[in-house]
Amino acid sequence: MNTPSRLEDLIGSLRCLPGVGPKSAQRMAYHLLQRDKPGALRLARALDRAVDGIRHCAKCNNFSEEEVCDLCRSLKRDPALLCVVEMPADLLMMEQAQCYRGMYFVLMGRLSPLDGIGARELHLERLVKRALEQPCEVILATNFTAEGEATAHYVATLLHAQGVRVSRIARGVPVGGELEHVDSGTLAQAVLERREVAE
Amino acid sequence: MNTPSRLEDLIGSLRCLPGVGPKSAQRMAYHLLQRDKPGALRLARALDRAVDGIRHCAKCNNFSEEEVCDLCRSLKRDPALLCVVEMPADLLMMEQAQCYRGMYFVLMGRLSPLDGIGARELHLERLVKRALEQPCEVILATNFTAEGEATAHYVATLLHAQGVRVSRIARGVPVGGELEHVDSGTLAQAVLERREVAE
Repeated sequence: MNTPSRLEDLIGSLRCLPGVGPKSAQRMAYHLLQRDKPGALRLARALDRAVDGIRHCAKCNNFSEEEVCDLCRSLKRDPALLCVVEMPADLLMMEQAQCYRGMYFVLMGRLSPLDGIGARELHLERLVKRALEQPCEVILATNFTAEGEATAHYVATLLHAQGVRVSRIARGVPVGGELEHVDSGTLAQAVLERREVAE
Repeated sequence: MNTPSRLEDLIGSLRCLPGVGPKSAQRMAYHLLQRDKPGALRLARALDRAVDGIRHCAKCNNFSEEEVCDLCRSLKRDPALLCVVEMPADLLMMEQAQCYRGMYFVLMGRLSPLDGIGARELHLERLVKRALEQPCEVILATNFTAEGEATAHYVATLLHAQGVRVSRIARGVPVGGELEHVDSGTLAQAVLERREVAE
């Protein structure tokens, strides 16, 4: 069929987005070309600028445009608390719950051997180094999924070996649920009820 | 919160894609930045090239990189048949069904007063002009939805006024269904059983 090759390129390129299959990609391409060319150009610019200008904060590993992000530089945060989350979205949820004033470390994933994501891919050695920089309690706020729990267990073992105090947010978060989707109240409760992980 | 502004830009820009809400946009942005920066840059290039290089074929109104698309220039197609479809995806389905060897006219939409899409937005005057260029039967292959049916009825009225012979693909396509999602056999049957629209 005589689909213009630039259109085929665009449809193929849209499939790099997670959850976008061939039909969705086609619909997106048609929509952009037919109804929202300015949006398409804006998106192209935003992609370039993001890839070019966004890196990982040297302290918390979250996305940042600076060497060290605003939150890590803030003097209002409690440096004696270090909360470990899987993704930036989880950090945002924690902040929205307004239940926590400490620092963060963002794993940018979870242990997932099937996807080839092990301890090295999560930069856990950086987390350990970060936790040892100054005495602090590490609060594990990974998801209560199988992979999140495995990650929490693994991180706790690593940190205990270094004599770091480790706690886990309370199981107020529904079992099998993901942090990104719980309400702020539940999350706040879970932080309040965090319990130390036995060695 | 201290989300980098380039990240916010990217998340906002991704929302120009149809069916992408705030959470999906966030997930897409994280995925691209964390796991597929080459994909992000490829997408940016594809968007630029598509917006820059894709226009509408002067004859069939489909997307094309040329003034007149390959299909309209082909000598193997029957110029006495003109099939009217809503979207390029419908044209592709027709071609995949291998039941039709005539020409096309792509409306790039359907009459939808609630969305502000009327006869002018669909360039129906171009369709009429195209149908009068040479004697032909116009086959209406718009969807069997309320809007698709209304569009077919409106187009039939316009063309009848000019003395053009008009037919509608058979109601083998499930009522309420959309062309893009039916199987090739059903679609082929519907083309075979097309019936003339009474004046």
